[in-house]
Amino acid sequence: MALGRIAVVGTGLIGGSVGLALRAAGVTVVGFDLDEKRLLRASERGAVDIAAVDLATACRGADVVVVALPVSRVAEAVAVALDAGVPVVTDVGSVKATVVQAVEAARPETAARFVGGHPMAGSEQEGIDGADARLFAGATWVLTPTPRTDPGAFTTVRDLVDLVGAEAVAVPPARHDELVAMVSHVPHLAATTLMHAAASSGGEQAPLLRLAAGGFRDMTRIASGHPAIWPDICVENSDAIVESLDRYVRELRRVRDLVVQQDRAGLLMFFEAARAARRSLPTSAALAGPLVELRIPVPDRPGVIAEVTTLAGRHGVNIADLEIAHSAEGGAGVMVMVVAEQGATAITSALIELGYRVARSAIE
Amino acid sequence: MALGRIAVVGTGLIGGSVGLALRAAGVTVVGFDLDEKRLLRASERGAVDIAAVDLATACRGADVVVVALPVSRVAEAVAVALDAGVPVVTDVGSVKATVVQAVEAARPETAARFVGGHPMAGSEQEGIDGADARLFAGATWVLTPTPRTDPGAFTTVRDLVDLVGAEAVAVPPARHDELVAMVSHVPHLAATTLMHAAASSGGEQAPLLRLAAGGFRDMTRIASGHPAIWPDICVENSDAIVESLDRYVRELRRVRDLVVQQDRAGLLMFFEAARAARRSLPTSAALAGPLVELRIPVPDRPGVIAEVTTLAGRHGVNIADLEIAHSAEGGAGVMVMVVAEQGATAITSALIELGYRVARSAIE
Repeated sequence: MALGRIAVVGTGLIGGSVGLALRAAGVTVVGFDLDEKRLLRASERGAVDIAAVDLATACRGADVVVVALPVSRVAEAVAVALDAGVPVVTDVGSVKATVVQAVEAARPETAARFVGGHPMAGSEQEGIDGADARLFAGATWVLTPTPRTDPGAFTTVRDLVDLVGAEAVAVPPARHDELVAMVSHVPHLAATTLMHAAASSGGEQAPLLRLAAGGFRDMTRIASGHPAIWPDICVENSDAIVESLDRYVRELRRVRDLVVQQDRAGLLMFFEAARAARRSLPTSAALAGPLVELRIPVPDRPGVIAEVTTLAGRHGVNIADLEIAHSAEGGAGVMVMVVAEQGATAITSALIELGYRVARSAIE
Repeated sequence: MALGRIAVVGTGLIGGSVGLALRAAGVTVVGFDLDEKRLLRASERGAVDIAAVDLATACRGADVVVVALPVSRVAEAVAVALDAGVPVVTDVGSVKATVVQAVEAARPETAARFVGGHPMAGSEQEGIDGADARLFAGATWVLTPTPRTDPGAFTTVRDLVDLVGAEAVAVPPARHDELVAMVSHVPHLAATTLMHAAASSGGEQAPLLRLAAGGFRDMTRIASGHPAIWPDICVENSDAIVESLDRYVRELRRVRDLVVQQDRAGLLMFFEAARAARRSLPTSAALAGPLVELRIPVPDRPGVIAEVTTLAGRHGVNIADLEIAHSAEGGAGVMVMVVAEQGATAITSALIELGYRVARSAIE
């Protein structure tokens, strides 16, 4: 699938950055935003080649539509783009399950052409003025294919992610939401709440908050950005957030008990385990080192792409390239997947366990 | 009081940094550490001029002893230094009330020469190898005088703090502990616990923790340092920590309710208030701008120094200089305090409210 002309709907921080990165890669970018001023500013900043007067115009002739609107408005715009016949539609919202379900429920016939996405990148700055062509360089970009997702649509969005310098990893929508609740949403709430607790405890001695050293400043930095996007996120991902918050509070109670009991040994174990976990925090899965090609005969049925790619995601294996070669007779095909040698064995074993046959060959 | 020769007891990260900073300022530094290797390393790093064979030797001839040991071992070393006749003794522990009380209880006659201290500075690095002469540059250094504290001892420690480039602020010991519980200890526990919660929720999908973007990495960074010092801190400051933890958990429950109720307006207010608080977080109180001199006739009785200096701390007013001029006849004196013009009015009003008379004059 060609990526000659891409429409970006919503030209704020993320949409604007997508536009800048795609234009830098030689793609023609059509932009649309309900806020005319923001669209004009995106044009001035060089984030779009063409400013469209409405969503339908933006969709016309686009190979892909990237919906970069607040989470609560994504599903509706995706439906419009699908109805307009756009070959592939994706989004960049921070919550995925509700959006993917809404699209599949509203457009059961055409939802296969929609692939949910979420770039794990952000900025302290807000809006189009914070947009940056390099925002996604080296970042992880989650894609959330489902059993209904068309393999061609998936690979097209993968290519787009590649084009802006990010690394695609496939994760089922609900699992994505659980994960971001724990590594993004709850940390944001934890930091914000810490800021509240400190501010409210300051009382008349508020000036003493300047005792706050680097750790406190580091921790609460994320509390200083983007209040407007968070109510949406909290509402759209409320179940996963509440579950992770509860887990967090349970763990805090466990620590409280250790402090009350003045249990030095227990406290030391607690701090040491956290340090070990922090130090082994995986960094973005770079595709450094040798690559191998895995060829996997697959039944030509929906669901394979989601199963195999999310399996790779689960094992932390980045997919450098992916295509499905259909046999001339139809019915079955071969999935050709290129991954880093480092993760190839893990994913091969997992695939074999699921009943796939896997042929592996090195790439020069 | 001269600062010609200073003994540093405990030559780890903080003690080593004090040594480096003092030596850079031309002071002769005597070092002692129970761990001979660490003392040798401090010597190699240039943090001490003289490595003493024991604590008593280190104290001999020292104008000030700086105790830089783990919190649980501070009081005992302070007592030894006081018994050795050292004119002024201070420490750098993260918890103050238990230490100050222990010293005053054990050495009621000589505790006036001890001034508790706590530099609000740290490093990702551990031990003497992380020591840095610039560690305290611009940092806040809390001093915790009590009604028993000798004004001369206080000003000497203030001068020492000045010499290493930090800014002294006086706070009563118990209040210090409440504050650091909220801005240092509980944030550390919150980050560590977040790391635990995320690691334990990862399960087989742990590789997906690489979805963790900058915010999570920022928040959990402090979980990667110094596990060994934390059990001590948690035990010594357990009351204040439990109180702040409880406040934090209460606030988390409030947020949980907003998420469960999907209360967008309430959530927006919550995030906006936190941002406002974060943005107005006082930075270190620089002594920029014009200074004024306040002359305050004071009864020559213990407690005045603690009352006046902690009042300044409470108002976020930095004391640039402080001395007590005793009248020739004894009995009463004049406290001469130099503060930034910006905070002078607040502190003047507060002093007048407490019954002091204050004469103010500009400094060229």
